[in-house]
Amino acid sequence: MCQHFHNLTFLKVLMRLLQHILKNPLKSAFYLQKMAKSKYEYVKTFEIEDRLLPNCWLVVRIDGKGFHKFSSKHSFEKPNDRRALQLMNRAAVAVMLEYKDIVLSYGESDEYSFVFRKETEVYNRRGSKILSYVNSLFSSSYVYYWKDYFHDVKLLGPPSFDARIVLYPTDNNLRDYLSWRQVDTHINNLYNTTFWNLIQKGGLTNSK
Amino acid sequence: MCQHFHNLTFLKVLMRLLQHILKNPLKSAFYLQKMAKSKYEYVKTFEIEDRLLPNCWLVVRIDGKGFHKFSSKHSFEKPNDRRALQLMNRAAVAVMLEYKDIVLSYGESDEYSFVFRKETEVYNRRGSKILSYVNSLFSSSYVYYWKDYFHDVKLLGPPSFDARIVLYPTDNNLRDYLSWRQVDTHINNLYNTTFWNLIQKGGLTNSK
Amino acid sequence: MCQHFHNLTFLKVLMRLLQHILKNPLKSAFYLQKMAKSKYEYVKTFEIEDRLLPNCWLVVRIDGKGFHKFSSKHSFEKPNDRRALQLMNRAAVAVMLEYKDIVLSYGESDEYSFVFRKETEVYNRRGSKILSYVNSLFSSSYVYYWKDYFHDVKLLGPPSFDARIVLYPTDNNLRDYLSWRQVDTHINNLYNTTFWNLIQKGGLTNSK
Amino acid sequence: MCQHFHNLTFLKVLMRLLQHILKNPLKSAFYLQKMAKSKYEYVKTFEIEDRLLPNCWLVVRIDGKGFHKFSSKHSFEKPNDRRALQLMNRAAVAVMLEYKDIVLSYGESDEYSFVFRKETEVYNRRGSKILSYVNSLFSSSYVYYWKDYFHDVKLLGPPSFDARIVLYPTDNNLRDYLSWRQVDTHINNLYNTTFWNLIQKGGLTNSK
Repeated sequence: MCQHFHNLTFLKVLMRLLQHILKNPLKSAFYLQKMAKSKYEYVKTFEIEDRLLPNCWLVVRIDGKGFHKFSSKHSFEKPNDRRALQLMNRAAVAVMLEYKDIVLSYGESDEYSFVFRKETEVYNRRGSKILSYVNSLFSSSYVYYWKDYFHDVKLLGPPSFDARIVLYPTDNNLRDYLSWRQVDTHINNLYNTTFWNLIQKGGLTNSK
Repeated sequence: MCQHFHNLTFLKVLMRLLQHILKNPLKSAFYLQKMAKSKYEYVKTFEIEDRLLPNCWLVVRIDGKGFHKFSSKHSFEKPNDRRALQLMNRAAVAVMLEYKDIVLSYGESDEYSFVFRKETEVYNRRGSKILSYVNSLFSSSYVYYWKDYFHDVKLLGPPSFDARIVLYPTDNNLRDYLSWRQVDTHINNLYNTTFWNLIQKGGLTNSK
Repeated sequence: MCQHFHNLTFLKVLMRLLQHILKNPLKSAFYLQKMAKSKYEYVKTFEIEDRLLPNCWLVVRIDGKGFHKFSSKHSFEKPNDRRALQLMNRAAVAVMLEYKDIVLSYGESDEYSFVFRKETEVYNRRGSKILSYVNSLFSSSYVYYWKDYFHDVKLLGPPSFDARIVLYPTDNNLRDYLSWRQVDTHINNLYNTTFWNLIQKGGLTNSK
Repeated sequence: MCQHFHNLTFLKVLMRLLQHILKNPLKSAFYLQKMAKSKYEYVKTFEIEDRLLPNCWLVVRIDGKGFHKFSSKHSFEKPNDRRALQLMNRAAVAVMLEYKDIVLSYGESDEYSFVFRKETEVYNRRGSKILSYVNSLFSSSYVYYWKDYFHDVKLLGPPSFDARIVLYPTDNNLRDYLSWRQVDTHINNLYNTTFWNLIQKGGLTNSK
């Protein structure tokens, strides 16, 4: 395992380390560790615990930042760009493959909802942890898989998404949440389909 | 603005829309909007406000998920990979260019801290909003700028970062927070430099 | 309504007020009100909203502070003092008469649990408001009704109770909460009955 | 210590206890304790930790519920009832004697503010605990000391107070908080003094 243990290079390294410790006793790792623990580590007590109420459906909803502008910069097809929607789905798949406690996801336009089962103990139900990991993986996946759907269309800058966590105590509440998003999808689709047909086929411009 | 307003295509669209509304009065946009507002929108009341205490330094700390494995999968140079550190810095720059209330950032290894000025009213100081936007932009930037630093080295999958927000009431507390991170950097560097020199030059293996 | 509007006393008061305002223009109510609103009222923004998650059973549990000592100072009968328990019940009745959304209460020894119905919108579900009002009324009632149960036994000082709010999403969770308290009652009763019988009838002393 | 250990009464008690345990093995204390711990105690995990941010001034503000009505029911003298104010002060003294980390209190009318020093670790800075204990002791003291100030005037029912906790990160913020309350006192006093003089000496009635 260690044939050259006594070779020259290693001895030099060891000597240099020894010199460092002897010359700078106050800056040695041991001292630093102790200092870090005793003098500064109190700042950790300012981190507030944010464990979420048990036995509630836990929904993480992600929403694109400024995607109206983002979509026109990248010439998304209107009213719906198949590539953009498939990319959203691909990012969602990445999240679902990572977090097995997600039982259902639902997306529309530039938003996505992830439903964790009520009993999940992922990250000990710490809100910030769940929120940030899910949102981060979604965001990096969106960029990572961009080329698989947009091919030659260059991504002109890193997009970002906000995220929130909402708790729903009962199955009825969760169903109503999903209905709320679904109705929103329907309204937006109806409006966008009509609006863009008026623009594209009716010869109107999209200036308000 | 609207020269072809009365052309045939547009009339057809209009007729189809009219038919839709007349045939499916219960599914018309108006009805849906009303339904969404009256019946399901109560679910929005389950979103809990998370405004952060005013007049405190607001630190967002980001931390890579499983970067030990991530770094060996991508053959990061040890103890420090210049490309990886520069990429972290590049992602941090993207965040700082977007959020002007960040007055200071500090990174080491796979973590980064962003300090918002005490008076910031960005997103009305809503915790989830700040946390998720900063973390999302950092994550997508990491993937977006990867090729600028790693060139031929292919990114093998979307990485992710967790994030937390910590409030510090006084300048002293903030300074101690930064000292805490800096001492941590120093300790890790000293340890890693020694450890990897033992491995690389001393002929030891990195099995524990 | 105002027969003596012009009488002498009133004029004097009016004159004095006028003098006050003219002499101390900077301290006049108008100025103060403006000052209070413009300069200091920002401190109200430091009050953090604490609205509780909707559609959950809301339990306020109250617990006596140092009642072991309190009970021996007032020579409570052991193992159970009927007067003390009836006084606890009387204070609970006062709370229930005031808060109609309490559907069930359960007490034992020096603790009491109040269950608000899931849909309650009392005080807009603000946690501090509910917690403090319930606990305050219970505490003041305990003192107010003391003499009705303890007659000649003088209350030797103001007792105090802590309180906490716990949310339970489902009926099962609430039932288990109540079972938890009930089993606790049973254990304590069995233990206390045995312990005090050993003391009182067995001739043991209560020094451990 | 135990002269009658073997007397008859004690043996009977012991026998009865033994019978109870033998006859009802499933209801024995041991079983109950185990049951309580294993089956129901999970409900404790629904209690959310509410530790307050360290190094901030911690203000508990108490406010009387419906004291407009309360004061007229007990015929408080207008504009200020010396007895009522002294009773408020007495209750505040009780609180300050109990909680040594309170460095300053300020009261007016039916409200009182208690300022805990920034470094306080009382009850491990748990918000509900601090809020409820302070408010409870104040409330019970108000009733307990009533007769010392109102003598023959009978207290017609238990009063109650709400309470909230507000954190102030800096000394300036705290000073502004106190100024805010002080200006409020001044405004109210000026208004009340004038108003009640108009009523009492001017012959107006207090119907709006």
